[in-house]
Amino acid sequence: MRVDGKQFRTIWLSPDPKVIQIIDQRHLPHEFIIENLVTVDDFACAIKEMHVRGAGLIGATAGFAMYAAALSAPVDGCQSYLEQAAKKLLATRPTAKNLAWAIDRQQRAMARESSIDAKRATALATATEIADEDADFCRRIGEHGLTIIRQISEAKGGRPVNILTHCNAGWLAFVDYGSATSPIYAAHKAGIPVHVWVDETRPWLQGSRLTAWELGQEGVPHTLIPDNTGGHLMQHGLVDMVIVGTDRTTRSGDVANKIGTYLKALAAMDNQVPFYVALPSSTFDWQIRDGVREIPIEERSDAEIKFVSGRAESGKLETVLIAPESTRGANYGFDVTPARLITGLITERGITPAREADILGLYPEQR
Amino acid sequence: MRVDGKQFRTIWLSPDPKVIQIIDQRHLPHEFIIENLVTVDDFACAIKEMHVRGAGLIGATAGFAMYAAALSAPVDGCQSYLEQAAKKLLATRPTAKNLAWAIDRQQRAMARESSIDAKRATALATATEIADEDADFCRRIGEHGLTIIRQISEAKGGRPVNILTHCNAGWLAFVDYGSATSPIYAAHKAGIPVHVWVDETRPWLQGSRLTAWELGQEGVPHTLIPDNTGGHLMQHGLVDMVIVGTDRTTRSGDVANKIGTYLKALAAMDNQVPFYVALPSSTFDWQIRDGVREIPIEERSDAEIKFVSGRAESGKLETVLIAPESTRGANYGFDVTPARLITGLITERGITPAREADILGLYPEQR
Repeated sequence: MRVDGKQFRTIWLSPDPKVIQIIDQRHLPHEFIIENLVTVDDFACAIKEMHVRGAGLIGATAGFAMYAAALSAPVDGCQSYLEQAAKKLLATRPTAKNLAWAIDRQQRAMARESSIDAKRATALATATEIADEDADFCRRIGEHGLTIIRQISEAKGGRPVNILTHCNAGWLAFVDYGSATSPIYAAHKAGIPVHVWVDETRPWLQGSRLTAWELGQEGVPHTLIPDNTGGHLMQHGLVDMVIVGTDRTTRSGDVANKIGTYLKALAAMDNQVPFYVALPSSTFDWQIRDGVREIPIEERSDAEIKFVSGRAESGKLETVLIAPESTRGANYGFDVTPARLITGLITERGITPAREADILGLYPEQR
Repeated sequence: MRVDGKQFRTIWLSPDPKVIQIIDQRHLPHEFIIENLVTVDDFACAIKEMHVRGAGLIGATAGFAMYAAALSAPVDGCQSYLEQAAKKLLATRPTAKNLAWAIDRQQRAMARESSIDAKRATALATATEIADEDADFCRRIGEHGLTIIRQISEAKGGRPVNILTHCNAGWLAFVDYGSATSPIYAAHKAGIPVHVWVDETRPWLQGSRLTAWELGQEGVPHTLIPDNTGGHLMQHGLVDMVIVGTDRTTRSGDVANKIGTYLKALAAMDNQVPFYVALPSSTFDWQIRDGVREIPIEERSDAEIKFVSGRAESGKLETVLIAPESTRGANYGFDVTPARLITGLITERGITPAREADILGLYPEQR
C-alpha cells in the first residue's frame, strides 16, 4: 500500500517495542493520523471505536493486543490476566471472526511456554506472524482473483472491467493489499483497465472515506455511489462483477459482511452479474453452517446514523445532525448473504464455489 | 397534515393571488421555512433545486407554475410564452411523470379559452383543482391501503404492523396525506398499531430529513435505518410489508421510484414480504410498457453525495465534505422496479396487481 507515494502497513511495531502504531482511520480521508497503542485498553478502544476496522486488521490488532497483555501481565496470575484481556478484546466486535481467531492463536501459542519472558517473546513472534501472514494471504488472494478479472477483460476486448465493491475490504481493512481490493490492485498493476464503483457504505461511510481514498492513492479509476445505486447500474449492464470482503463466513459459505451486502448480492443474481467474496481463511467460522441464524450481528449506536462528520468550509472537522433530534435509529453492522447468491469465494488457496464440500476441498484439515 | 399541531398543505395560494406559498423542504427537519413563488423562474428553481419534491407536489407546483406563467404572459404572443414556460418547467425533473401531466392539463385547459383573462382564471381554477384532486386521491389511497394493514394486523393478533418505506412519499411529497404514508396515517388514526422503518434515503436523505420528521409530527412510531438495513430486517421477520411511492409507473406496472427501491423489492421477494406501491393515477405513464428501457432516469450533481448538510453543535446549519475532495461520484435519482417484484399498486380507485390487464381494469378509459 502507498500513502502519498510512501509504503505503509496499517499496523506495525514502533522503534520502541512496547508501542504498536496504527493509522487512526476515523480521521480519513481528511487527516492521516498515526496513533500509538500501549495498554490492552488502548487496543480494545481502538477496535471498538473503529480507529482500526476490517476483518484482517481487527485480527492483527488483536494479535498485538495479546502481546501488549503479555507485556503488562504480572508474573503471578499471568494466566488469569491474559484470560481477562482476551475476554475484554472479544467483546469489542461480536461479528468479526478474525478477532476470536487471533486471540485464540495467541492463547495457544503462549500456553506452550511456561516463563513469562518466553510468553512475551512468543506473543510478539505470533503477533508478527499473524500480521505477515495476513499480508501474504491477501497478496495471494490478489493473484487468484486476477485470473477472473483477466477473463472478463478479455471477453470485453480490453474495455475497462467495472467492479462494484461495498464497504472497505481494502488494505485499510487488512495489514496490506486488502481482500476485495487485492485482485483489483493486481489487475491495475498488470495493466488491465479496471474501474471501481465504490458504495459509500452508510452509516460509517467506509466506502467514501476509506475505499475511495485508498483507490485514489493507488491511482485506480473509481466512482463513488450511494449504496442505493448498484441495482440500477446492474440493470443497465454497467457492472461486470462484484467483489466484497467478509467478517465471518460459515463452513457452508454463508457470508456475513457489512450491512447492505445482501442487497447487492440479490441484485447481482437478478442481473446475472458474478458476485465474489474475497477472504483469507482466518475469516472462516468452521463451527457453523447457517449464517442467518448463527452469526451474531453487532448493533451499534444510532449516533452513527443521525450524525455525520466531515470537513466544513472553514477546513475544520465538524459533526452535523441530519435527522430530527428525537428520532431513534437502528444500526445493525452486518448482514448475511446466503451462499446460494455467491458465485465464488476467493481465498489464499484459490477460488471455490460457496459450498461446504468445495470449501473443504481447499481446506481438508477442517473436515 | 399537521406541523406543530397546525394544519398545513405543502402548497397554497397566499392572500395575494399572485403569490404561491410552499414549505422550502431543503431546510427540514431543522427549520420550517415558507417560501413565496411568483415568477416562472421561481417555480422552475423550486422544482429543480428541490425546495419542493415528490410526485404529487411536483405536479401541483407545476400546475401553479403554469398559472404564474399565465399571469405574466403578454397578450400578444401569449401562446408561445406559455409554451416556453412549459418547456422550461418540463426540463427540471425528467423522471417525474406528474410534471408533464400537470403542465399538459393546464395547457389543454387554457387552450379552451381565447381571452387572456379567461386563460388566467382557468389556469387558477385548474391549478387549484390539481392540488385538491391530489389531496383527495391520496386520501382515498389511504382508505384502500388501510384494508391491507388491517388484515396484517389481525393476522398478527394486534401486534404492531412493521412497515418499511423508502424515500418520502409522505404528505411532504404530495399536497396532503401522501401516497405511501396515507394508509399508515389511516391505520394510525383507526387505532391499529403500526411501526415504520424509515430508510434514510441517500443521497438527499428524504427519509431522515422528511419522513422521520412528518411521522414524528403525526405521532406515528418509527425507526430510522440506513438504506442498507432493509434486507437484514426482512431476513429476520421484522418487516410485514413495504409501501413506497413512485415518480412514474408504466401501463404494465413497472415502477420508477427513488434510487434503491429496486433493491428493497428484491429483498421483499426473497423473503416473501408483500411489496406495495401507492400512487394517484396522475403518476401513470400510459404511453410506455418497459420501465427499465423507457423511463428517463435523472442524473444529479455529485455534490449531493460528497457533501452533507445538517445542524452543527453551534446550532448553525453547516455543510461538510465526507469524501476525498478529488473523488467523482455518480448520482442517479431513480431506479426502476420491474412489475414482477410488486405485490400490488394502491391507487385512488383501489388495489390492483401490477399487470397491464388488471391496471386497465381500474382505468378502462386508457385501453
